[in-house]
Amino acid sequence: MGIEKIILSYILKCRFKYKITRYKQEVLEMKVLVINCGSSSLKYQLIDSDSEAVIAKGLCERIGIDGKLTHQTIGKDKYEKVVAIPEHNTAVKYVLDALLDKENGAIASLSEIDAVGHRIVHGGEKFANSVVITDDVMAAIEECNDLAPLHNPANLIGIRACQAHMPGVPMVAVFDTAFHQTMPDKAYTYAIPYEYYEKYKIRRYGFHGTSHSFVSKRLAELVGKDIKDTKMIICHLGNGSSITAVDGGKSVDTSMGLTPLAGLPMGTRSGDIDPAILEFIAGKEGKSVQEITTILNKESGVSGLSGVSSDFRDLDNGMKNGNDRCRLALDVFCYSVKKYIGAYAAAMGGLDAIAFTAGIGENNSYVRKMSTTGLGFMGIDIDDDKNAVRGEEIKISTENSHIQVWVIPTNEELAIARETVELVNR
Amino acid sequence: MGIEKIILSYILKCRFKYKITRYKQEVLEMKVLVINCGSSSLKYQLIDSDSEAVIAKGLCERIGIDGKLTHQTIGKDKYEKVVAIPEHNTAVKYVLDALLDKENGAIASLSEIDAVGHRIVHGGEKFANSVVITDDVMAAIEECNDLAPLHNPANLIGIRACQAHMPGVPMVAVFDTAFHQTMPDKAYTYAIPYEYYEKYKIRRYGFHGTSHSFVSKRLAELVGKDIKDTKMIICHLGNGSSITAVDGGKSVDTSMGLTPLAGLPMGTRSGDIDPAILEFIAGKEGKSVQEITTILNKESGVSGLSGVSSDFRDLDNGMKNGNDRCRLALDVFCYSVKKYIGAYAAAMGGLDAIAFTAGIGENNSYVRKMSTTGLGFMGIDIDDDKNAVRGEEIKISTENSHIQVWVIPTNEELAIARETVELVNR
Repeated sequence: MGIEKIILSYILKCRFKYKITRYKQEVLEMKVLVINCGSSSLKYQLIDSDSEAVIAKGLCERIGIDGKLTHQTIGKDKYEKVVAIPEHNTAVKYVLDALLDKENGAIASLSEIDAVGHRIVHGGEKFANSVVITDDVMAAIEECNDLAPLHNPANLIGIRACQAHMPGVPMVAVFDTAFHQTMPDKAYTYAIPYEYYEKYKIRRYGFHGTSHSFVSKRLAELVGKDIKDTKMIICHLGNGSSITAVDGGKSVDTSMGLTPLAGLPMGTRSGDIDPAILEFIAGKEGKSVQEITTILNKESGVSGLSGVSSDFRDLDNGMKNGNDRCRLALDVFCYSVKKYIGAYAAAMGGLDAIAFTAGIGENNSYVRKMSTTGLGFMGIDIDDDKNAVRGEEIKISTENSHIQVWVIPTNEELAIARETVELVNR
Repeated sequence: MGIEKIILSYILKCRFKYKITRYKQEVLEMKVLVINCGSSSLKYQLIDSDSEAVIAKGLCERIGIDGKLTHQTIGKDKYEKVVAIPEHNTAVKYVLDALLDKENGAIASLSEIDAVGHRIVHGGEKFANSVVITDDVMAAIEECNDLAPLHNPANLIGIRACQAHMPGVPMVAVFDTAFHQTMPDKAYTYAIPYEYYEKYKIRRYGFHGTSHSFVSKRLAELVGKDIKDTKMIICHLGNGSSITAVDGGKSVDTSMGLTPLAGLPMGTRSGDIDPAILEFIAGKEGKSVQEITTILNKESGVSGLSGVSSDFRDLDNGMKNGNDRCRLALDVFCYSVKKYIGAYAAAMGGLDAIAFTAGIGENNSYVRKMSTTGLGFMGIDIDDDKNAVRGEEIKISTENSHIQVWVIPTNEELAIARETVELVNR
């Protein structure tokens, strides 16, 4: 290497280090408020972006009904307060008051909040990435209301309330659908008249994108491979469940569809069924398509099947006590997970690693075991002792397992905070 | 081995040979009429059960509208005849007249027809096997009308018409659903309120059972394994398409569901979609659930997607001429087949062989290739030269392919004739 090249290389290295340091310095100062706003609830976390620790967190419930605030600054007492919360503006005010509270609060002044990250359910085809919120972005989110009529309007109300109380603070929208916008058309197109896609944008979108993205990045790190060279399946199994095929770091297929009803059976959702069943039940029960869709969303899944509960701990107990419908509900669920693992390995033409995450994925060793039993032919071998964990980051496959299987706790709030920091600093 | 044992063994062998011969002799004499009766059509074949050759075949169309008969006795001229066919009794009469016709017929007397095999679409949970038709069987088929309101009543009309014209001739019912009655509950149960299964028997039934059974038996022979030790996937890809996982000779899962709408996208059927799409379209288009279900059955699939045709030859041509929606329709279809192959291999915990059958499966090399591309990691390797065949029984995988892949022409009429002979001779 000539002397010029060495000098140039040195200069470049110094510049890079300077950039890193500058970035770190900015990051050091940032406190990010993460907001997840539902139609009658508002969840929040204040996160220190350097240590990535939660500073405070809480929940406003029953907004527009009566109202309850639960708050905890980490290291201080958790408390609940019954207060009238007629609408989301009031909810945001209570959240900020709780954060500023001299005794139980977390900050001395609102100016300490450097940015707000908002979870947005549906970004349609407009958003393949997180974005800094502007008036144009607000309008574009509103255009997606149609696709998530219960969620997006609530998300927008949450943004407006935060803007009213924290004018000038940069805000970022992080979409549940964005990660899946890399799917190829063969994976997102339904075999229905094409005009329905053209007119109404009916297609597979997928959800839990923030979690799938977060967990897949971590899985690649743990496997020790460049994410670009990695074929992974992320099983986000919670009260809502979805599975994603992540090829080279990109979502190439996912089990949820136009809505979060599709794919796996869930706590109370049916997942995919023969679409002719709706007409069949409509005829038998004299119900409208709206009523049946509500039943498929709220009274189906493992809850409707077992007749016992949507909570997998209750199903585990029921099965242990000889309740055969609990056994059946668990069997149907695990069998569906297993088929998705096979399907997505085929879709990607191979598989390096699987992660289980979210409430059930992190805590239910029976589900993890049953979902992977018999997959030895694919190179999956589970270590039963390691699989006995709950909520820990751990490899549960044996050393001989050709495919690594991990439990990775998801953290959507942290993922939203990271996205927010990155965009605000861009 | 003592002398007694040798003698006993000899006696048993002789008895067995005698039984075989006796069976063969009976079989030699049998001519079986196979009837496939739709709401406005009646297809038939007269089959020699010894040679398994078709003696004559034909079709009555537009029954109850105007009427047309097409008949061919093999070795003689095929002809069409426009005749008034007001109902199925008349149709059966014309079929028998055509078979008896001195010039173009196939038999000299009705007494030559030894048995009639009827294809019945839906046997519900009542029929796990073919049965000789009795009054009780007729009543039980009628009880399944509910599950196949378009097909079963037509099938029953066909049986009654044949009974009227051929009194005393043994008749056998062969069910499209029977082969799949071996599915475990985890595969056939939907995650919907359990009462819908209890009250209305809403569950996965699956169809094309006669074809899946026929082709899986043949595939085990070709692979040279005892079917009991074989894990197979049968891809019946035609205008209606379904895929079945056959483990140890038994159907353990299949892609069609309560109705033949479910599973793969098809010529005009959507296959599985997010069940919330029905409500979404209903709201957008002001349509009833019945109207939408009709669209999902008649205007969807590759036809609705491409906007060109439900015929895969047209899609192949469209794609070659640069029509991107034809390319998309083929991609969506093949991708769905590939995911089922992966899912069912996982469901069975391994895979020995795959068969492609029916119109598309037997004739479309592009679909076979695209559906298996990238499955090298599972041990599937296709020989492109061998795959260039149409409608021939041939192994299309290479000698190195761990999983054998075959094209096997299906023959549902022959399968029905075989079942009929077996039951009548039992």
